Amino acid sequence: MKFTVAVDAMGGDDSPLKVIKGLNLFLEKNNNLNFLIFGNKDLINPILSKYPLVTSSSTIIHTNERVKDDLSPLEAVKKGKNSSMFLALTALKDNKAQIAISAGNTGALLVMSRLVLNTMEGVDKPALASMWPNHKNMSVVLDLGANIECSTKNLIDFAKLGSALFKSIFKKEKPTVALLNIGTEETKGTDLLKKTSKSLRELDSKNFNYMGFIEGSDIKDGNADVVVTDGFSGNIALKTAEGTVKFFANKLREKFKNSFYAKLIYLISFKIFKDIRNDLDPRKYNGGIFVGLTSPVVKSHGGTDYIGFYYSVLLCYNILNGNFQEQIQNNFLD
Amino acid sequence: MKFTVAVDAMGGDDSPLKVIKGLNLFLEKNNNLNFLIFGNKDLINPILSKYPLVTSSSTIIHTNERVKDDLSPLEAVKKGKNSSMFLALTALKDNKAQIAISAGNTGALLVMSRLVLNTMEGVDKPALASMWPNHKNMSVVLDLGANIECSTKNLIDFAKLGSALFKSIFKKEKPTVALLNIGTEETKGTDLLKKTSKSLRELDSKNFNYMGFIEGSDIKDGNADVVVTDGFSGNIALKTAEGTVKFFANKLREKFKNSFYAKLIYLISFKIFKDIRNDLDPRKYNGGIFVGLTSPVVKSHGGTDYIGFYYSVLLCYNILNGNFQEQIQNNFLD
Repeated sequence: MKFTVAVDAMGGDDSPLKVIKGLNLFLEKNNNLNFLIFGNKDLINPILSKYPLVTSSSTIIHTNERVKDDLSPLEAVKKGKNSSMFLALTALKDNKAQIAISAGNTGALLVMSRLVLNTMEGVDKPALASMWPNHKNMSVVLDLGANIECSTKNLIDFAKLGSALFKSIFKKEKPTVALLNIGTEETKGTDLLKKTSKSLRELDSKNFNYMGFIEGSDIKDGNADVVVTDGFSGNIALKTAEGTVKFFANKLREKFKNSFYAKLIYLISFKIFKDIRNDLDPRKYNGGIFVGLTSPVVKSHGGTDYIGFYYSVLLCYNILNGNFQEQIQNNFLD
Repeated sequence: MKFTVAVDAMGGDDSPLKVIKGLNLFLEKNNNLNFLIFGNKDLINPILSKYPLVTSSSTIIHTNERVKDDLSPLEAVKKGKNSSMFLALTALKDNKAQIAISAGNTGALLVMSRLVLNTMEGVDKPALASMWPNHKNMSVVLDLGANIECSTKNLIDFAKLGSALFKSIFKKEKPTVALLNIGTEETKGTDLLKKTSKSLRELDSKNFNYMGFIEGSDIKDGNADVVVTDGFSGNIALKTAEGTVKFFANKLREKFKNSFYAKLIYLISFKIFKDIRNDLDPRKYNGGIFVGLTSPVVKSHGGTDYIGFYYSVLLCYNILNGNFQEQIQNNFLD
């Protein structure tokens, strides 16, 4: 059976062009998805005429409306019932698709998703997860900002959701799970974290290995496949890491433009730098994954290009192909 | 008048050798400090014989005892009343020195400092601050882990303490202060942060400019001289940034060792890489500063070498030379 992705074609910079080109790139490599594309047909059809692969795997559902980037989530919900974003989520609710993707307004997407879709049985709050590169491969980190304040139950849910996600994407039987804290000893951190850590140990899940606390500096080691935290700390960690990478990359660039000699070195080591950029290309980790609802919703970065959008579509495919929702059910039955 | 620094000579790796060598390096550049050195004279004196500059500016106070690295803060306090760390703090309390420095057990140093020294009038909780390199220069970030949970009053205190610190070190009249949050709009974040932001605006201090919220990714831009946050988020941000720098540096190293050609490039660009390492040398930002007590206490990294220790001593000097405690008093009178 081919899975179907509900696509908001109108979100983010340079849409719908980048969206169609991203879908095309995916289909060139793998024709195992169908798309329900929501957006303005007057803008979409002229592009589609150049991408027959996309045309043959897609159905266009026309709407004039889109959620603007500067709307507050509340305004978006109020005014956006006919928007491409809202309609894509409705298709998910009506079982016409198994996952939805949008590069639009993040806050609006989260609020609309919760409004249109139910939370899965057993889950109190959905969470925003994403992939972090590490020395070994990738980790799933969640929550990244959907829930500022979390209970022990929420954090345990995130452990179950995150490990199901890791399992479906990377096909690992029993992912390792850690709680983000300000020290690794059991005595460190808030009472809530100590209590959650104890509960996770007692849970002794057969679907993931709980390994205890890790610190922010340990995320990159890759010993924890899944890093669980509340949405406030998770967002601070994510943004700080992004800022640090930019800072480091800028320093590097500066130094290699500093003198004629440095520029020359840069030129002859072009391939090496290209390789580093390629390795650390943020487009490859592009895509927040909103988990814990009856269907997953993928948020592509608004500013990314069609290659970044392609990686988000690939993420959708991997999530569906790895039976993510079934993995979650196992984790919650455990 | 020459200031006096109370030095715990026994803390951290390779002490007391690195401590004495660090003091010597400082005195070679600037003889404007006296030192009260606490530690085992049988270990210190043989080293001192090679560093006459240190000998002539120091008084040694002998003790056999030191705080071990693996002690919990509570055990350290219980057993360590005669340790070099405790005695250095006591000298501070007795006005024999104006600042104390240790490369020993962080938790023990924080707890002992609070036990020995009083908080400054008007301050409820002291905070751990440190310097972060940014695109422009440096920021002061606090709290980095001394207080897991903070009230509005605590965060406002941190704004006053942090701006006094920035002012004393960098001689800037009115530093900019920002609150770390998960978005820059006034509607973002916890109720506590919204309330604190409102209070900081209303305070309209003549000693610092409150600029609102910033995100983790903004720290490196350097628009905020002082970044205020609770100790949990601050620690997560700091550790995540440290881990990210290591990750990036490792990637770079890997790539430049990947092939004969890459190794060759690395060799001929050695000076550039040295320059980058020098620019980002963590020893330059070495030193947590415990502020809000009747005297400041500087924590040098346990693993740093004598150059790192030298930078912490330089930090002590700059803090004293910039009349830090007086700056705080101004901020709290404001």
